[in-house]
Formats: sequence, structure tokens, C-alpha cells
Amino acid sequence: MYRSHSCGELRATDINKDVTLSGWVQKIRDKGFMVWVDLRDRYGITQLIFDAERSPKELLETAQSLGREFVIQIQGTVIERESKNDNIVTGAIEVVVQKLTILNEALTPPFTIENQTDGGEDIRMKYRYLDIRRKPVQENLIFRHKVAMQVRSYLSEQEFIEIETPYLIKSTPEGARDFVVPSRMNEGQFYALPQSPQTFKQLLMVGGMDKYFQIVKCFRDEDLRADRQPEFTQIDCEMAFVEQEDILNTFEGLTRHLLQSIKGIDIESFPRMSYEDAMKTYGNDKPDIRFDMKFGELNAVAQHKDFKVFNEAELVVGIAVPGGASYTRKEIDKLIDWVKRPQVGALGMVYVKCNDDGSFKSSVDKFYDAADLATWAEATQAKPGDLICVLSGPKNKVRAQLSALRMEMAERLGLRNPEEFAPLWVIDFPLLEWDEDTERYHAMHHPFTSPKPEDMKLLDTDPGKVRANAYDLVLNGNEIGGGSIRIHDKETQALMFDHLGFTPDEAKAQFGFLLDAFQYGAPPHGGIAFGLDRLVAILGGQETIRDFIAFPKNNSGRDVMIDAPSKLDTEQLKELHIELDL
Amino acid sequence: MYRSHSCGELRATDINKDVTLSGWVQKIRDKGFMVWVDLRDRYGITQLIFDAERSPKELLETAQSLGREFVIQIQGTVIERESKNDNIVTGAIEVVVQKLTILNEALTPPFTIENQTDGGEDIRMKYRYLDIRRKPVQENLIFRHKVAMQVRSYLSEQEFIEIETPYLIKSTPEGARDFVVPSRMNEGQFYALPQSPQTFKQLLMVGGMDKYFQIVKCFRDEDLRADRQPEFTQIDCEMAFVEQEDILNTFEGLTRHLLQSIKGIDIESFPRMSYEDAMKTYGNDKPDIRFDMKFGELNAVAQHKDFKVFNEAELVVGIAVPGGASYTRKEIDKLIDWVKRPQVGALGMVYVKCNDDGSFKSSVDKFYDAADLATWAEATQAKPGDLICVLSGPKNKVRAQLSALRMEMAERLGLRNPEEFAPLWVIDFPLLEWDEDTERYHAMHHPFTSPKPEDMKLLDTDPGKVRANAYDLVLNGNEIGGGSIRIHDKETQALMFDHLGFTPDEAKAQFGFLLDAFQYGAPPHGGIAFGLDRLVAILGGQETIRDFIAFPKNNSGRDVMIDAPSKLDTEQLKELHIELDL
Repeated sequence: MYRSHSCGELRATDINKDVTLSGWVQKIRDKGFMVWVDLRDRYGITQLIFDAERSPKELLETAQSLGREFVIQIQGTVIERESKNDNIVTGAIEVVVQKLTILNEALTPPFTIENQTDGGEDIRMKYRYLDIRRKPVQENLIFRHKVAMQVRSYLSEQEFIEIETPYLIKSTPEGARDFVVPSRMNEGQFYALPQSPQTFKQLLMVGGMDKYFQIVKCFRDEDLRADRQPEFTQIDCEMAFVEQEDILNTFEGLTRHLLQSIKGIDIESFPRMSYEDAMKTYGNDKPDIRFDMKFGELNAVAQHKDFKVFNEAELVVGIAVPGGASYTRKEIDKLIDWVKRPQVGALGMVYVKCNDDGSFKSSVDKFYDAADLATWAEATQAKPGDLICVLSGPKNKVRAQLSALRMEMAERLGLRNPEEFAPLWVIDFPLLEWDEDTERYHAMHHPFTSPKPEDMKLLDTDPGKVRANAYDLVLNGNEIGGGSIRIHDKETQALMFDHLGFTPDEAKAQFGFLLDAFQYGAPPHGGIAFGLDRLVAILGGQETIRDFIAFPKNNSGRDVMIDAPSKLDTEQLKELHIELDL
Repeated sequence: MYRSHSCGELRATDINKDVTLSGWVQKIRDKGFMVWVDLRDRYGITQLIFDAERSPKELLETAQSLGREFVIQIQGTVIERESKNDNIVTGAIEVVVQKLTILNEALTPPFTIENQTDGGEDIRMKYRYLDIRRKPVQENLIFRHKVAMQVRSYLSEQEFIEIETPYLIKSTPEGARDFVVPSRMNEGQFYALPQSPQTFKQLLMVGGMDKYFQIVKCFRDEDLRADRQPEFTQIDCEMAFVEQEDILNTFEGLTRHLLQSIKGIDIESFPRMSYEDAMKTYGNDKPDIRFDMKFGELNAVAQHKDFKVFNEAELVVGIAVPGGASYTRKEIDKLIDWVKRPQVGALGMVYVKCNDDGSFKSSVDKFYDAADLATWAEATQAKPGDLICVLSGPKNKVRAQLSALRMEMAERLGLRNPEEFAPLWVIDFPLLEWDEDTERYHAMHHPFTSPKPEDMKLLDTDPGKVRANAYDLVLNGNEIGGGSIRIHDKETQALMFDHLGFTPDEAKAQFGFLLDAFQYGAPPHGGIAFGLDRLVAILGGQETIRDFIAFPKNNSGRDVMIDAPSKLDTEQLKELHIELDL
């Protein structure tokens, strides 16, 4: 038996007990006649004491020879600590060691195993098994486990069944790139790894499983942007005999349960906003509504004067930055530089200081008088002391730019409190979006999303205007889940494929089994999928999903710890009936 | 809202309620003036009634037009049923329909959606979404979900943390063949899909996570034997600071919990048997101990006479088949034919009838007298009325043959009751096994398994005799789990690689990260992995794992429903830097 207690377990009530502990050497303080060792495991830290009087003599020497991260086992007696440490749960006691066994030695780790480490990202990833020893990383992994357990227990209680769908499936050209797997037994053929279990969950609904969920790995071979992983985890859900309202209620329930059980936060009911309103009010389909700074559209009040820039713009729109009137000229210039950065891309910015005395000072005083600017203040809900920032240009671009500015200002003003949670349903997404590159419409959500019946008539005349029964759940400015009511009849599905530019043959080759299935009595159904990595990071009050993944990959899709991907033997390639084409 | 109640919910207490139901048409009985429809969903079946008197007139006609598996929604009133059906929970009521909506029509399904279907395996797999509508399949999937939930809740309560390990890892030539995934971003390189998360769970122990588990998909590109799947699910577990005893106790606890919570069966403690004893007593390392027929070795009592076959054999061994003395000559001849089948491979079989009067009648009466045969009866624990079946030959072969006969006889005698559960720990497995093909030793469990310290001295002199701290959990003659205490120091691991024929460079290339990790303070650790598919099938009292997998593949590794694997576009191959080599 390696231990009678964990390193986080002993309390004042255990004084005088003989105990056995095992763990890692966190810290050593050597005073010559006396050595203190902090012994660490997942559960905590216990202070050990070796001294010439109370421990066997040779022990002191062995203790002095210990290095950081040595793995040791000790036997000893719990005693009261002279100088108690209220910061740790075992701070009332220490253990006088009678026996010490070195279970394993350790090289000096390449970075400190402390909450705040001196190791950079790269070295910590290479030695991820050492990084995981640090408490913040362990706590993140434990936090993730707790969230997943709560998801499972909540959905199970709601009669959802977790069903495993296959990982070796079929490649489809639609959507992102698939990772593929050559088949040895079926020469020249390939499996694909699922981008999501979308078709399988729909088939489970056709199969009458009624309520399905799965916490499941998904794969996308995309060029990796910051904080994306080629493999990621989804909470994948589907229900039969439901309308949009049923799904929103069910998964609002799940999210409320998580906030309550994990964070102790009660949120009565989640607000809803149409995609159109979100774009108009926040310039973004995943608005962070922890703070205001709502968009005020200024076309009506700013396009009647001689300011050509505004007059020629499709959209003139502003936000009121709280307290921004006190910005110096220099600060404002820097802000203008900020919006002109290539990542944001604005050509310039007009500003209006709303002074405390009710007067205005703007960069366009030449064109607009106080009465004009008062209407701007009204439209942007600016109060005395605020700074109105106005951008103009093509509608979609300028919305994205002002949205970026809004987020930046919120960040600077400390309005993005990670311990405050503001969920929001964004609904009524467009069914299709125009793709400039391929010059055709793509499914905004995916090709199985149901159009709103009342918009079906627009499908031929104005496809971009057709709204879908599609919805996203947004939390603090991040899309944490998205889904839709699905098409459940063969005719509408064929119509959709047609509008997406599939010939009937192409549709049949790729989704024949789903179209077939729809002939045999498919129920109305719909679902949602949550990104678990992101959800956990946000609930954990952190930014980076990588911090909640045990063994993440870097931006080139490499696992630098195990050095994967790697080369294969020629023989292995031969067996798979492929050769390299470099 | 598609329904106010499910089809399994209404009871006598609901009489007079107005309800809305949705589901599939299971059955229609049309008496002209009256139509009964059985409406089905996951939760049950409710009888609907349409008649000329109580339902709107046109409804009767629509009802008469319904086909099997149509998806319908009805509104109606719950009434008391005249002829109650005690076999179903809704049998006390029926619903008089006032409104009927056809949600989706259905072609006639290619097989009947009944508990006993007329569809063969192939057609059911092609239309698996229809097969899943059948109650036995739905129940199996729900059963699997329940088992997985119980596993998770039990292990979580024991402070195990479920941690997701990566699916895109590194290929290693050791063990079974990997499925591989070409990397687009890293030209000419490949990921591999994990055969198990073995190294990652060990790294998590090095990382101090202490207790890890994961229900996880694993992949093996093997030529598929019956009832094997290229992707399968493991309950993967690892613990730090443990000895074999700790692991056996913990996972005996898990298994007891499953038997108790899922089957309502209490089993006090599981027997243990060494690998050597299992081979000696049952000829098998996964003996089914629901019944006896233990092996009796007869060398000592049968090799002193003139029967050359026995005298020249390495092993002479028999079992006593209960009641077999009554077999006719013809039945015994058929049994001899059975053991001579190529699948069993015995050259012949000697038998002894133990007559009720205490006399014997054997096929070798020429060589052995009654006193000889009495010693055989004693060695095989044969009672009057039994038939002793004796095989002889090379030890390993003859044990396997007699084990096959033992299982066959148990099957014929009805001793393999699927609702009886007999778990058994098989321990002290050999560390290495000799491979005739490659003429070298292979790791029996895997190369990270710890030898028993007391056997280490044999590693150079008699490697085949070295026992490992390795164990299997056997249930009803199936290995449901297996694991080992791992090597946790670099020296022993290097020694093992050496004995397995790896050069230090090869070991470093393949497992360098693990050997590196062992230098930084690896704790003693060990673990186990359960095959979830098999475990669920056995707990469910069934034979085939396929029946507990939503979308299984066939024996050629194909998913016949989605028709995968399939060909890729030339362009897709080009992007992946590979071409076909056919």
C-alpha cells in the first residue's frame, strides 16, 4: 500500500496518527539540522519534517539529497504545526517522518512546477506531462470532467440516450475538409473522420430513438486559426417531434443547469434576438451582451449635410463609449490608428465628445452643429461624458469594424468580466449565404436545415432573404452552440440540394442513404451541438481552449510532445495501397 | 407542440383527458366502420380508435389510407378500453381520435418492424435506421447508455477524472496494425488513430492526475474475425501509487456495482486464479466457471500401460461430462467427429462411460482395467452416469482442444445460462510469449507491463518463465477487461525494450517521449481497460456485440448503410500528397 492518506487529506483531527503518504517533492527547505519538504499530489500539499531529534539519523541525509519532483513515499506521525498556514487545507499539521523511500528520481524539470511557471508555451507543450502537474492545468481538466458529468446527468434525466456513432465514415466534399483514412481491406477506398455526427443523429431520429446526445470528438482539416484544434469535442444533441421552441427550452434548461451547478449562478430565462437585430444592434451574430454600447445607425440624421464621406456610405453607425469624453487628443488619435489596423480595416473614424456640460466637440464640427450631434447622441444612447465613435462604409464591413471596436473598448473598460455570464439566443438565421469565390449560395448552417415555411416562397425569387429555423446559443460573445430544425421530407431536401448546386446524382451519391431514410417515415426533428472545449473555457472564466485540453496540438496541427504526425514505413504505405506524392 | 404525452404514458387515470400524440403507425385493423391503429414511439404503444360515430367522418377514410410506418400526429380523448390488454402498460385505455395529421408518409419497409423481424442480417444493416426502430435494438442501445452512465458515476465517485486523449496520434509498428491519417499540413507525414490511449494514460499518471478514466473509441486495422469491429469502445483506466491489489479491488468494485445496479445481482467477492492454474484446469486463460468439468490430467495414471498414443503424448487430459454415460455409440461417434473437425483439430478421443452400477466401459478396455479407469474417474471427478472424454498430444494444443470440447458440452447441456454471472480474476500472466513466426519474444500484454520483481532474475536465463503483474477480468468465459502494473523507471523499461528486440534507437524513435517522461519523476502506476461492447453484450445476456452498436460495420470493415469506405476525388488525394498504388 503506497499511502494511507492523500496529500490533501490530513487535518488537526488527525494529529498523532501514523500515516503513509506518497507524492512529488514540491519544495525543500534545508536548515542543516532540520529539513522541511512540501509533498504534493493531485489532492494537495502536506508539509513533511525531518530533523535530527525526531527522525532516524540517516533520514536527514537522504532528505537533504532529494531534488524537486522526486517521487517519494514516507511513513510518519502527524503533529501540530507550530506556525500554521491558513492558506492551505493541511496547514494546521505537519508529518514527522520516520521512514523515507525514494520511489523515483527526477531530473530538474525544464520549467517550474508552480501555479505561475517560468516556462513558455512551447516548452510546456513539449513536456505537457510536466505542465499537467501544475495546479491550474489539473484544475482545468477536473473542471472539464465536472462539466461533462453535469451535461450527461442532466440530459439523461431528460430521457436523452447517449449513443456512440461511428468514427470511420464517408467523405463528403461539402463543408470543411475531411481527414481521411485509407482502407487496407477495401483497396483504393477511404474512410473519413466525422466533422460531426450530423447524418447519424438524423438517422437515429428516423430510427425512433427520440432523444439522442453524445459527447463526441469531431475532426476538421482546416488551416488552423488561433485557438482552433483539428480535433475538438462536441455535445451533440437531436430530438424528434419538436419545434424550435422545444429545442430552445430544452437546451436553455441544460445551460441554466450548468451555470447553476458549476458556477452557482441562477439565470431566469435567456433573451432572444433575431440574426437581423443582432447584426443591426451589435454588428455581430454572437454579440456580447454583458455590456451595452449598442449600435446607433446614423444615416437618417447624418446624411443631410455636406460631409461627403457619410453621404456616400451605405451605412453610418456609431457607439457611445462610456466615459470616453475625457480621452485626450492623443488617445483618440491612437484609437483611430487602432481601427485603421489591417485586422480591423476602417478607413477612419469620426468622433463626438459628449461633454459633461451638455456641449459637444466632434471631429466633424465643420459639417454638423450641436443640434445635429444631439440627434447622434440620442441614436447611440450617449450620455454626458461619453465618446461617440462613428464608422461609415459598406454595411457588412462597417458593422464588423464597429463590432471589433466595441469589443476592444469593452475590454479596455473592464466590461468583459469573466465571472459574469450573459447567454443569448440568436434566432432566425438566413438559410443561405452567398459565396463570392464559388459564386453560389452555400448553406449557412448545413444542407439539412429547414427553411421557415413562410419564407419558402422566396426560395426562387430572393434566396438570400429566406430565413431558417436555425439558432445559436451565445455566451459572453462566443457561439457556444448552434443548431436547427431539420428538413424531414424528401421533397424539401431535394429542393435544398438543388438550390445548393447539387445535381440529383451528386446528392444521391453523397447523401443517398439519408434521402432513402426520409422515404420510410422520418419524424419532424431538430437539434443542436455545443462546442465543449469553448463552453468549458468560458465557464472556467478563461480565454484559451487549449488550457482545457489535456494534449492539444499546435497551430500546424502537430503534437510536439509525441512528435506527430510522422513518416510511415514504405511497407505500411504499400499495405494501404497508397504512395507519397511529394 | 407535437405531443402532450408519449405513446407509453397514458394510463387509466388519464381517462377523459384530451391528448396529442405523435408516432409511427405500427399496425392497422380496419373493420370498415371502425379502424384501430397502434401508434408507436420509443416509449411504448398506444391504441387509437377511429369510428364513424365518435370521430369526424372524413377521419375514418384518412385512417383507412394510412400505411405501416407512416408518421402521424393525432388529437383525441382518452377512454377506457373495452378489452384491456395487460401485456402493455397502456393496455387499459385507448384514444378516440378527433384530429389526424399525416406528418410523413412511408414506403413499405423492407422488413417488418417487429420484435421478431423477417429481415436477414444484411438487409437490416443496410436499413439500420429501420432496424433501430425495433424494440430489441432500441432496448440494447438504451441498455448500453445505462451501463456507460453507471460506469461514469461510479468512477467519478471514486475520484477518477475522465480525460479526453487525442485521436490523431503517432503510428507505432508494435502490436496490431494502425489506421493512419495523411496530414495535409505536414507533407508526407501521417497521424495514426489510437489502438488504445495507453501511453497517454501513463503520461497522465506522470502528470499527477492520479486517477484517470475514459470511455473512448479505439481502432485496430485487423483482418476481421467474427464479431470484431475495426472501431470499438474501451473503458480505459489508470491509477498512480497503486499495487496490483489496489487495482483488483477498485475494478472488482466497479464490476460489482454494475452487476448490482444493472442486473440486481450481488456477488460478494470475485475468485482469483493464476494463469497457470487456469490453463491447467480449464485449458484456457478465460475460463467459464459457471460450470465445472474441470480438467483431470491423466499422465500419471494412464502412461504405465501399452497404449502407445498416450505413452507418447506430452499431455493426457480428460473431463467428465455430466450424464454422458447414457450416450449411444452413435452419439459418441458424432462427438469424436466433432473434436476431429479442423476448427478443433484433435486426432481422436478416448472415452470412458462411468456406469451407474460403478462399472466402466471405455474405448481402451484393451489397455486399461477397471482399477485403472477408477483412477481416471477420480482425477476427472467423474460420478456414476458421467462420460469421461480424454484427449492427448502436445500440451498447448490438447488443452485448447479439450477447452473447446468443454465449452461445447456445456452449451449442449444448457450450462451457459446468460442470466447467471461468474466473474473471475486471472492473474500472474507470463510477461513474454514466444512468437514462432518472428522467432522472438513478444510482450504478452504490452511492452510497458511490469515483470514481477521476484522473477526479474529469470529475464536472461528463462524469459518465458517470467511472470508479469498483469491480470484479466473474465466474465462467463469472456475476457471483459485486462491490465497491468506498469514499469515506471527508465532502466526497467529500457531492459524490456531490449528483450523485445528493440535497439535503443528504435525504442527512442517510437517511445522516446515516454522514456523522457520517466526521467522526470514517474510514480508507480497501473491500470486496466474494459471492452465496453463485449461487457454490455454479456450483461445484456447476449452473444453479439454488433447488437449493441448503433451503426456496426460488416466483416469486411464496410458500413453498408452509408457505403463506406469509398473513393476520393483525385484533387482530394493531391491535397493530401498521396496517390493510389493499386
